[in-house]
Amino acid sequence: MNKEITSVQNPYIKELYQLKEKSRDRKKSGLFLIEGAREIGLAIKGDYHIETILYYPELCSEIQLNSLKTHQLSIIQISKDVYQKLAHRDTTEGVIAVAKTKSHDLKNIVFKSENPLILVAEAPEKPGNIGALLRTADAANVDAVIIANPKTDLYNPNIIRSSVGCIFTNQIAMGSTSEIIAFLKEKQISIYCAALQASEIYTSQDYTNATAIVMGTEATGLSDEWLKQSTQNIIIPMQGEIDSMNVSVAAGILIFEAKRQRNFS
Amino acid sequence: MNKEITSVQNPYIKELYQLKEKSRDRKKSGLFLIEGAREIGLAIKGDYHIETILYYPELCSEIQLNSLKTHQLSIIQISKDVYQKLAHRDTTEGVIAVAKTKSHDLKNIVFKSENPLILVAEAPEKPGNIGALLRTADAANVDAVIIANPKTDLYNPNIIRSSVGCIFTNQIAMGSTSEIIAFLKEKQISIYCAALQASEIYTSQDYTNATAIVMGTEATGLSDEWLKQSTQNIIIPMQGEIDSMNVSVAAGILIFEAKRQRNFS
Repeated sequence: MNKEITSVQNPYIKELYQLKEKSRDRKKSGLFLIEGAREIGLAIKGDYHIETILYYPELCSEIQLNSLKTHQLSIIQISKDVYQKLAHRDTTEGVIAVAKTKSHDLKNIVFKSENPLILVAEAPEKPGNIGALLRTADAANVDAVIIANPKTDLYNPNIIRSSVGCIFTNQIAMGSTSEIIAFLKEKQISIYCAALQASEIYTSQDYTNATAIVMGTEATGLSDEWLKQSTQNIIIPMQGEIDSMNVSVAAGILIFEAKRQRNFS
Repeated sequence: MNKEITSVQNPYIKELYQLKEKSRDRKKSGLFLIEGAREIGLAIKGDYHIETILYYPELCSEIQLNSLKTHQLSIIQISKDVYQKLAHRDTTEGVIAVAKTKSHDLKNIVFKSENPLILVAEAPEKPGNIGALLRTADAANVDAVIIANPKTDLYNPNIIRSSVGCIFTNQIAMGSTSEIIAFLKEKQISIYCAALQASEIYTSQDYTNATAIVMGTEATGLSDEWLKQSTQNIIIPMQGEIDSMNVSVAAGILIFEAKRQRNFS
C-alpha cells in the first residue's frame, strides 16, 4: 500500500525539511536528501542506503518511478505543497530520496590502481567549487578525493547539485591535515602541493607513480603543515595581471597533466 | 568641493541602482558600476573610462581614496544607506565607480603575439563560469577572449565579481558565431572545438601555431556551425561514471595544454 502525505505540517515532512536546511540535523540523524532520479540512481549505484522515496506524481514520470520501485524502497506520494517545501532546485523531477550518509574514514579507501592518483583539497568552502572538484575527479577517474579539515558539510544540497551527482561516484574521505599526511606517507604516496613558495612548474614533475595533488583555498593557500611535508611544491605559471585562478580550474589543470603523463589509463 | 548624497531617493542614486539591477539600463546608458578599489584600479589600468567615484567614508580607507583621487575623477561622498543600496557584495570596501562600457567589436582586437592563443566561448550563461573563464584567460595571458552569441550581459555585477576584475584585464570581443568564424578564418587561426563528435584526444593536437580553443555550453555543446568549420574537434577523455565537466575547468585544461606546448611563453 502506498502512503500519501499532503500536509507540510506533517511531523515527518518537518524533519525532512530540517535535513535540507541544517547540516546539524543531517549530522545528528545521519540522513540527507537527494533530489532527482539521476542523482538517486547514482547514489544507489554508489552503495548509498536509501531509506525512503518521496514523489509528486505530476512531475515524476512513470518510468522514473518504476525504475526506483525495482529497488524495493519505501515509497511515499506527496502533494505539490510538500514537494515544494522539500525541493531545493528550480527545475526538478518530482522525486526526492531520504538517504543515509556514509562514513568517510580514510581507512575505508580502496585504491583502484597500483599507482593511485588522489586529489586532496584542504578546507574548501564554496559548494560550487567542491562540486566542480568532484566532477573533475569523476572525469579523471581518480582513486580518491580527500578533504582535509572540511569546512562545509559534504551533504549540503548545493554540493550535491553542483556535483551533478559526482558526490556519489567518487570515493571520498575526510580527515584532519595531520591524519591525511600520515596516511599518504604510510602508503608512500608522493605529495605535490599547489603553492606559490619554493615551487617548480607543474609540468616538470613526474606524476606516474602514486601521487596526491593537494590544493589549498584561493584566499590563503595551503597550511604550513602541508608545505613542510610536501614532496615538491608545484605551480601553474601565471602570466596575467592578477595571478589568481579558480581553485577547481587549477585542480583540473594539475589532475589532467597527471592523466596526460599516465596516457589517460 | 566634494559633493555628498545621503538620500536613497536622490534621482541620480536611483539611476545608478538601475545600472546595478538591469542590463537594459546598462545598455541604454552605456554605463555600469564597479565595486571595490582593486577592481576599479584594474578598470583604470584597462583603459576603462571612469565617470564618477562614490565612497562611504566609514568603509573606505584614506589610502584607497587618495589613490583614486590621483586620477582626477569626480568624487561623491555617500551615506551608509546609499552605499548599501548600490553595493552588490557582502564584504566590500566602501567604494563604487560609475564607468563607461567598452565596445567589444572583433575588429578592435590587437594580438599580443604572432601566434595568438584565443579562448572562444559560445553562449555561456552562468556568471560564475564566465568569471572563471576570464580568470583562466588572464592567468594564461591569452591574446583575446571572444564570446559568441552572448546570452549574459558582460557587465552583470556577478560576472565582474566572479572574475575578480579579470573582466578588465582581458581583451574581450563579442559577436555572432558566423562573424567570429569569418574573423578566425581570415586571420588563419586554427579552430579547435571542444566536442564529443569526431574528436581527437586534446593532447594529440599541436597548438603552437595561431589557435582558437572553442567551448560550448555544458547543456548543449557547440552549435553545428562551429563543428562544421572546426579545424579539428578535440575531447578531454572522461573515464568516470558521468562524463561531465564544468565548462570553465575544461577550458582551463585545454588552454593550459596549449600553454604547456608553447613552453609557457
